[in-house]
Amino acid sequence: MNISRQLAVLLLFLGACDAGANEIIYDVEHQLTKDQYRDQWREEDGQIDQALEALKQKHGKRPNIIHIMWDDASLGEVGIPELNKVLGYDTPHINKMADEGMAFTRMYTEPSCTPSRAAALTGRLAVRSGMFKVGFPPEGAGLHADEVTIAEILSANGYATGFVGKGHQGDIEQAYLHNQGFDYANFSIYNQYPFMTWSARAAMAGQVNGLMPFQWDKKHTLDKKFRPLAYVNQLEARKGGTAKEFMGPPNPENYKKLMRVHQKQTLDYVREHADNDVPFYLAYWPHMADPFVKPEDLTSNASTWYAYSMEQLDRDIGEVLALLQELDIEENTLVIAMADNGPMHELAPNGPHEVIFAGYKSDYREGGVRVPAFAWWPGVIEKDQVVNDMITVHDLFTTFARLGNALSLVPTDRVIDGVDQTALLLNGEGRSRRDYYHIYTGDVLAATVKQQFKRDWTKERPGLVTDAFTDLYRDTREEYGDMPPYLWAWLAFDHMRERHVTQMEKYPNRPVTRGVPYEGIGNLRHDAKRMSERLVKYNLSAADRNGDRPSPSVSE
Amino acid sequence: MNISRQLAVLLLFLGACDAGANEIIYDVEHQLTKDQYRDQWREEDGQIDQALEALKQKHGKRPNIIHIMWDDASLGEVGIPELNKVLGYDTPHINKMADEGMAFTRMYTEPSCTPSRAAALTGRLAVRSGMFKVGFPPEGAGLHADEVTIAEILSANGYATGFVGKGHQGDIEQAYLHNQGFDYANFSIYNQYPFMTWSARAAMAGQVNGLMPFQWDKKHTLDKKFRPLAYVNQLEARKGGTAKEFMGPPNPENYKKLMRVHQKQTLDYVREHADNDVPFYLAYWPHMADPFVKPEDLTSNASTWYAYSMEQLDRDIGEVLALLQELDIEENTLVIAMADNGPMHELAPNGPHEVIFAGYKSDYREGGVRVPAFAWWPGVIEKDQVVNDMITVHDLFTTFARLGNALSLVPTDRVIDGVDQTALLLNGEGRSRRDYYHIYTGDVLAATVKQQFKRDWTKERPGLVTDAFTDLYRDTREEYGDMPPYLWAWLAFDHMRERHVTQMEKYPNRPVTRGVPYEGIGNLRHDAKRMSERLVKYNLSAADRNGDRPSPSVSE
Repeated sequence: MNISRQLAVLLLFLGACDAGANEIIYDVEHQLTKDQYRDQWREEDGQIDQALEALKQKHGKRPNIIHIMWDDASLGEVGIPELNKVLGYDTPHINKMADEGMAFTRMYTEPSCTPSRAAALTGRLAVRSGMFKVGFPPEGAGLHADEVTIAEILSANGYATGFVGKGHQGDIEQAYLHNQGFDYANFSIYNQYPFMTWSARAAMAGQVNGLMPFQWDKKHTLDKKFRPLAYVNQLEARKGGTAKEFMGPPNPENYKKLMRVHQKQTLDYVREHADNDVPFYLAYWPHMADPFVKPEDLTSNASTWYAYSMEQLDRDIGEVLALLQELDIEENTLVIAMADNGPMHELAPNGPHEVIFAGYKSDYREGGVRVPAFAWWPGVIEKDQVVNDMITVHDLFTTFARLGNALSLVPTDRVIDGVDQTALLLNGEGRSRRDYYHIYTGDVLAATVKQQFKRDWTKERPGLVTDAFTDLYRDTREEYGDMPPYLWAWLAFDHMRERHVTQMEKYPNRPVTRGVPYEGIGNLRHDAKRMSERLVKYNLSAADRNGDRPSPSVSE
Repeated sequence: MNISRQLAVLLLFLGACDAGANEIIYDVEHQLTKDQYRDQWREEDGQIDQALEALKQKHGKRPNIIHIMWDDASLGEVGIPELNKVLGYDTPHINKMADEGMAFTRMYTEPSCTPSRAAALTGRLAVRSGMFKVGFPPEGAGLHADEVTIAEILSANGYATGFVGKGHQGDIEQAYLHNQGFDYANFSIYNQYPFMTWSARAAMAGQVNGLMPFQWDKKHTLDKKFRPLAYVNQLEARKGGTAKEFMGPPNPENYKKLMRVHQKQTLDYVREHADNDVPFYLAYWPHMADPFVKPEDLTSNASTWYAYSMEQLDRDIGEVLALLQELDIEENTLVIAMADNGPMHELAPNGPHEVIFAGYKSDYREGGVRVPAFAWWPGVIEKDQVVNDMITVHDLFTTFARLGNALSLVPTDRVIDGVDQTALLLNGEGRSRRDYYHIYTGDVLAATVKQQFKRDWTKERPGLVTDAFTDLYRDTREEYGDMPPYLWAWLAFDHMRERHVTQMEKYPNRPVTRGVPYEGIGNLRHDAKRMSERLVKYNLSAADRNGDRPSPSVSE
């Protein structure tokens, strides 16, 4: 068979994948296994539908869903008592959550914050939604209005939807989370960085902190705005309303308070929605890691701000679970708690660091993308499970849609990478419907995992594969790349990438969505407005400035 | 205070340490903490004595002790379900042992087999007993008769003493384990290496295996004995009797059988001694890691001989614990199961590899010396404990002596490094009596751990300390050596080493004990005898040849 014939067959096959107009177009690799297990999965799905229907009868509504996702952690940093000891701090509540539910040892994320969070919201690889780059201020970019989020889908199907914490989906109006399906959103448009500096005024007065020293050469400076200062970060808004900056300009003092406010908001949200007729979906993505902890507040053996942050996170999660039990809604509430990507290596050793795997945030090795993750749903998810099934952050989108009986609202005009993992949650180890993951860093396909094997695409050389293969069981830290035992895998992985790329040509990736920073903020500060105007004037094209205007993507 | 005055004070202090003629002379660092906690420990010891006496009344004898010690493993390779998943094999029995007893996360060993095993037997740093070098055939060296082993001590106090497995204490007669206190010993004099080759005859016939290829340049070879071939390894003997080679010349086929025979011997030993009037001490140090496993026998997800070995070890340990329960003696039997040192890195990725820490066998980083370890004693050791107290393999000597009511038989003419850790076993986390460890590789003091801090002595430079310090909680993999935050520790560690070295000058280390290989073997093969003679003729000094003859060191 020559190449063009191969391609024709492949395209035919891809055509067959999206058979009906109303069927979800999955990534071709999932479609390939779906075709192998069609009958088996159909039967299992029938049983699951019955189980979910019985639960609905019992509780009078579909299940509540709480998705807790924190920053930058390695598998092993929480949830395993032996590793607590090794690391010098304790996370008893998360450990208990693991004992009472399901601990994942192969939960994959994207390798950085913005992409991982976009993946959770859209169920799509960040490279498909144009959200593959970590946003920093002032960016003038963000999540496109036409991306369909899990909040939009569940909201359209009757859920109350709330967001509290770190959004990091961009500083353009269409990306604001109250414009992306959340009834209520208290969200940051960037990461924690803006909090780590002082306000513009304090900065101008010459104040200094570790992250942003303000004494610099003034004598030889022409462009005094090269270093941007007038950041806006935390916004609050309700669906259909106007965003307002929350708690004023970001600075360390605000940051400390904000984390406590968000924990309180989370508990209040749960309490207020517990007895409602409709279920709720709450994304609590806490700003995490408090580098401003005072020495006298340190309690753990490891006297670092990171250890302090982990213990605080643990207490916070413990409070959420305890509240669900107090309100007697724990048997109708799925809680997923996880990190968004691997440790930010640059902050080690006082911050997060590698624990089991090699690799860190931004990295395509396991350490960059394989995170601690737990599922808790007493009475539904069996207790004391450790599952090594592959699952990814994208899968949560499709799984939450299934649990909310809203699969029919998932868009069918684009590729969805998220796989429905309800069977894994309900039926346990071995029931995952995923056996692969294409790992992108930025918009580069850097590695592909299939089953226990991994291929490092960066090790390609023309015409011959090199020591690009790893068996992740044999070589957990990816130290011993090998070739000879994997010659069978050369073409197997080549074909896998070919399928992936061909499908991507048919359903092209969305370019980065650009626009005017800070539009739609009711109480925008003057200095921030000027920073935005500078970007518009010198950087944005006419198309960028007019914006790629939002249009509702799910009929509501 | 000038240097000589400091030294005088130090010597006075050291003199004070061994006050009574009959008191154990501990390493000065332990003595220093002992002086700080004198009253508290005395009170706790009184309570422990009462508890042990009550146990004796209940069971009619002192407790049995089983010390299982296998080869070359990293902390995390067994006992933690999440890491089982990551590594692709299961150790359910050891995991259960951990759940039902105490898991140690800071059990330190010496960094290699011979030293660790000598340390367990003598309670002394291997550098003190001259056992700091890993023995390979034909060595002509081994454990000196004047070293006092835990088997000698317990035997003298009425215990039955048995040894099954890998001894690795040398090929000279005085080192044979039936001459070192064991009533019965089935022991190897080296490690597994001799099994990995073929017999001399097969070798001469040109056979080849992965570890010892026998086709080499014959044309240019003068000395045809440069590569020794006639190995003897596994011996069997009873106290007072003559050793015999067990199961014939070592080769892969024998090796496979031998491991199964040893497991059976262990179970038989326990069964035969269960109802005796006297308690038993059994060292079961299994030959481990079966590189000859057939593909069809592989059962784990990680299809390596190492994964197979771990699962086999797990089943074997499970059988031992089950038997104790079947015989109803589990409440009067302490079982310690642990590895002897870190992973043999050179065998990765198909063999053991680093899991949590950096470092491997022979290495002074944590990975070389911090091993999986568990204590199990239903009804006495509380279940489900994870303790991060420091404990070392040397401590088992003193602890076992205490449990056997034989502390008075511990020699008082030499330094004992082992600390009595009965309080930790019985009273749980925080009760360790050790907060330091001097880590030797060979006879080099390479690093010192005190509390959570570690100093790397190999990073010394004249006159100023460098980035030689690590906080093991912050930096589990010892990647970020640092100086400024540890300036307080420069002298604190200097003084610690000074104390240690000064005491060592007062109680000098024993030189390596050399002698004629294979003496005292009843059925010595002719080819092995000739290999021994060659070594005697060309290598041993007159003193070596006459031997440093054994004299009984504990009156029996």
